[in-house]
Amino acid sequence: MTDDVVTGDVQSIPFGINLSFCVKRWVTPELWAPLVRERLGLDLVQFSYDLADPMWPDAILDRHAAELRRQAQASGITVHSAFIGLAHYTFNQLLHPDHDVRDYAEQWLVRAYRFAALAGIARVGGPLGAIPARLDGTEAEALDAADYADLVARMHRLAEHAKAEGLAELYVEPTPMRREWPWTVAQARRMMDDVAGSAVPWRLCPDWGHGTFEPLYGPDHGAMEPWFRDLADVITAVHIQQTDFLLDRHWDFTVPGKVDPVAAATLLRRTGLAAAPVFLEVFYPFEHDSGSILTALEATSARLKQALA
Amino acid sequence: MTDDVVTGDVQSIPFGINLSFCVKRWVTPELWAPLVRERLGLDLVQFSYDLADPMWPDAILDRHAAELRRQAQASGITVHSAFIGLAHYTFNQLLHPDHDVRDYAEQWLVRAYRFAALAGIARVGGPLGAIPARLDGTEAEALDAADYADLVARMHRLAEHAKAEGLAELYVEPTPMRREWPWTVAQARRMMDDVAGSAVPWRLCPDWGHGTFEPLYGPDHGAMEPWFRDLADVITAVHIQQTDFLLDRHWDFTVPGKVDPVAAATLLRRTGLAAAPVFLEVFYPFEHDSGSILTALEATSARLKQALA
Repeated sequence: MTDDVVTGDVQSIPFGINLSFCVKRWVTPELWAPLVRERLGLDLVQFSYDLADPMWPDAILDRHAAELRRQAQASGITVHSAFIGLAHYTFNQLLHPDHDVRDYAEQWLVRAYRFAALAGIARVGGPLGAIPARLDGTEAEALDAADYADLVARMHRLAEHAKAEGLAELYVEPTPMRREWPWTVAQARRMMDDVAGSAVPWRLCPDWGHGTFEPLYGPDHGAMEPWFRDLADVITAVHIQQTDFLLDRHWDFTVPGKVDPVAAATLLRRTGLAAAPVFLEVFYPFEHDSGSILTALEATSARLKQALA
Repeated sequence: MTDDVVTGDVQSIPFGINLSFCVKRWVTPELWAPLVRERLGLDLVQFSYDLADPMWPDAILDRHAAELRRQAQASGITVHSAFIGLAHYTFNQLLHPDHDVRDYAEQWLVRAYRFAALAGIARVGGPLGAIPARLDGTEAEALDAADYADLVARMHRLAEHAKAEGLAELYVEPTPMRREWPWTVAQARRMMDDVAGSAVPWRLCPDWGHGTFEPLYGPDHGAMEPWFRDLADVITAVHIQQTDFLLDRHWDFTVPGKVDPVAAATLLRRTGLAAAPVFLEVFYPFEHDSGSILTALEATSARLKQALA
């Protein structure tokens, strides 16, 4: 991954941060905007729905969306997209065994689109859902055909809603689990084909800790290369994290791991993805002290900015 | 903690499992009930609201509550209580800086009480909420007086709702964070005093990985002993987990750690808590394979059952 010569002429890769690090800590724009701008020196953000629950009543959401838009503008921050966070990911969403619960998850996304539009955020995404595990702990290799058809139908409907809200793009984030979907490059391609022509384009946001998960993909999976090489035409954003390929760690880059930021930049350029923004997505235990998170993120942001520049 | 002689005459401590291990995997009663009863050999459960979101429409909640009640009865399982899970804990709940968001969190709990009542579950609880971190990452030593008064007022109101639903008990689960409340034995005592006489009694459910968290309490904190010794009159349930006292691990007991189940049983008996049910609460990474979770929980359940018997 380091066989390319990086020269002064290479394209700078846009770098920003997902607000996952703010969860339960810096939960309002007046808290996270100055941290992102002044402490981390960044001007590109991916919002997290852990900071604004789309099921809050309209009056609360409208007020928070207006404040987000105002504060981002005042701070010179671009909010590229809004992504599902830990809270909503905890549920089975669009693949819950109860179809009425799937309907609720679909309604959740429609409300998420509305909030994004009000906040001036043009793109929304995240993982789509999970089927349950079996009683013996084994997991199906493929989604049931009816479940898959239902999921694709919902994605087409959701794109209509996104269009009505004036959004520009929707994202699927592949996750490294047989119960979720898509988890292979081939599944991701098939899904992109099956939602082609939707009212607003569905695109992929792969995550460095998902595509490299060795317990699922084995040790010779080629890390992120097959994802980026084979799906470059439908990837328009990327999540980066430090990880050991053994679990989906979402570490910052002060922790030793297998992701080298300079090699990551080279791979993105070589696979034609230098224009896709890369978002650092890190999670910390709730009980981790807040001061040391900021210190670690300062070092991490500086290192990634330099590597991707 | 092992200075007591355990004889054949000691009281058996009720042991059950929080359904946290089922999150996104065995999400319906027809999945978790046979696992709990047949695979783990347990008949006592603490339900998790990660398996049923109180904000689902009434029609869905009513159906899920009826199915839970039916399946638990058919399987011979007692559902002691229902606790806030990972999804709702991700939010600042009753201590969000926006009071309208606090109102929404209060409404969430009112709906949680309604679901519990319909499902035949007499007790509901969990952590109460979190104030945000400051911009510089430091955290206040104490909750602002107005925030505390607001929280206590909400707890009294919530107890009225719980009474109207016919619930028997509400729980506060102390967490090891300055931004949450209560995090010390003294704070927990004060809160119990301040909600004394509420329409339904508020009680404590301490967690073995919270009261032992050394980054907050220091190395000479006495582990769980001060919590159990000084608060025994207001503790009626306990969460157990394996942990290293360095983070709130929520490991199962196949992982090496600092919690010895036999010493734990001795401590509970010595502090007069042998009648309070102890619930194993474990969390696994979403990408952890489901089969190995069941194997680890079989061994863990057998070990804890033996230690607490």
